[in-house]
Amino acid sequence: VKYGVTRDSVLGLEVVLADAQVLHTGGRTVKNVAGYDLTRLFVGSEGTLGVITAATLRLRAKPLTPPVTFLATFTRLSDVGGAVAAIIRSGAQPSLLELLDRATVNFIEDYRPMGLDRNVAGLLIGQADDSGADEHANRMMAECRANGADTVVHSTDQLEADMLLEARRAAGPATLAQGTTIIEDVAVPRGRITDLLTRAEEVAAECGVQIACMGHAGDGNIHPSIIVPEPTTALLERAHRAAEMIWREALDLGGTVSGEHGIGTLKRSWLSAQLDATSYAVHQALKSALDPLGILNPGKAF
Amino acid sequence: VKYGVTRDSVLGLEVVLADAQVLHTGGRTVKNVAGYDLTRLFVGSEGTLGVITAATLRLRAKPLTPPVTFLATFTRLSDVGGAVAAIIRSGAQPSLLELLDRATVNFIEDYRPMGLDRNVAGLLIGQADDSGADEHANRMMAECRANGADTVVHSTDQLEADMLLEARRAAGPATLAQGTTIIEDVAVPRGRITDLLTRAEEVAAECGVQIACMGHAGDGNIHPSIIVPEPTTALLERAHRAAEMIWREALDLGGTVSGEHGIGTLKRSWLSAQLDATSYAVHQALKSALDPLGILNPGKAF
Repeated sequence: VKYGVTRDSVLGLEVVLADAQVLHTGGRTVKNVAGYDLTRLFVGSEGTLGVITAATLRLRAKPLTPPVTFLATFTRLSDVGGAVAAIIRSGAQPSLLELLDRATVNFIEDYRPMGLDRNVAGLLIGQADDSGADEHANRMMAECRANGADTVVHSTDQLEADMLLEARRAAGPATLAQGTTIIEDVAVPRGRITDLLTRAEEVAAECGVQIACMGHAGDGNIHPSIIVPEPTTALLERAHRAAEMIWREALDLGGTVSGEHGIGTLKRSWLSAQLDATSYAVHQALKSALDPLGILNPGKAF
Repeated sequence: VKYGVTRDSVLGLEVVLADAQVLHTGGRTVKNVAGYDLTRLFVGSEGTLGVITAATLRLRAKPLTPPVTFLATFTRLSDVGGAVAAIIRSGAQPSLLELLDRATVNFIEDYRPMGLDRNVAGLLIGQADDSGADEHANRMMAECRANGADTVVHSTDQLEADMLLEARRAAGPATLAQGTTIIEDVAVPRGRITDLLTRAEEVAAECGVQIACMGHAGDGNIHPSIIVPEPTTALLERAHRAAEMIWREALDLGGTVSGEHGIGTLKRSWLSAQLDATSYAVHQALKSALDPLGILNPGKAF
């Protein structure tokens, strides 16, 4: 979260265009305003404008000091979102700030028991790095305590830090082990995470499905996963209705239907709810300009 | 330099298109991969694709602690670039890292005497902020000393910091006070600043013009200013030849003809040296797609 998303580190690209010409975008400089930002147009275009065959990435030097990692547990889920908003407002710079809700904690304990409290409403795992790590981690932990955290623990060495991160690392496979899942990828303004989590709980009750939330809280990017243990037609229909209700909430909160996973085929119908007719027309005009025959990844993204 | 360029903070735009429709791009989230990155396509397009009428910007909380500012002087210009490269490699995070060469220092002393040593080959003014400021500033100052700096001083309070920054702030008006100037805006990979500065000195000698270099060293973005005290036709011709030789060097070093100022009308011929025919064709295709009648800022940028 401190260093931006991957696209922020892409300085230039080599792209094979629809007519087989090879385009080079960007360069090797940190700043460049010569011409349109073609690099960013192609990054995330999901193969619909050209085939990316090489990328020039910006490297960063390793931080001067190792990170400090902490874990905070909460008895009210709404407090988790409140703590995230308070951390961001405080000026503390998390290098990592991840959220797991009760359902996800229980999936992890089912999958690989590591002594997490199955009764927490949610927990945050955070990290600060570089020279100011202690001060930034302390500030974040103080904001957690001030916003309803029960327990806040922090690492004193790399081994402890790795143990705290282990829960987050297990969350993905542990959730997938529950059966068929529809994994949402919504992102909301970072002050609105509580609203999203609250709505996810309501939707779960309304649709009669289980929804587990985890995600990159520091970015406002949450993955509500709708669990479908037995994928019957009726249950899948309820699950898709739940997914739709959540992305509608994300859009109402000023968010996006996809923070990082992209659109592909699954989320094409969701995209049409986010982009209005004018934006769609601009997308179409750009697509037609660079791929007039429609041969690049047809049927994907939009 | 630590927080990126302005376009990195633009989350969304309102744009009036060529057909008078109003386009909204991006949103209020830190992460968003729904559709093409139209925001970045329009930022820096210099009004050639649409008229930007509103922007949503990402705000950052104020750093937890005030910055530490330092000034380092060098007797060899080549050492200045070497110090910058060493600082970047070291992992130190400058929040500001600016370069002034001897000519610029003398312009400042002519314009507003502040006791700078007119005999330095060049100087760096740097800053580190936030909790790790002391450690990062110390690391940068150590790299300056290890790379040939004569004198390195740092601020102990905000008043001293402001005094050190005063020289940098005066550099622009002081240079413009010298007469007609052609201000280049080249950027090179941050390890190649010395090559660029050396070439600028050669070019000045070869073309018989004065070239003063200052710029955002931490970004590799240097502004060699070609001074034309008496803008005769012959002198202007020599100045334009010098400008061309410098941007050719920047391109040879893997750089760009414009790091931040853009292309406009002055640099249109320079842009054609940077972009190849394929890139030009893509630019033209995008321009035609969004402005088929060519009514948006005609004749500008490319």
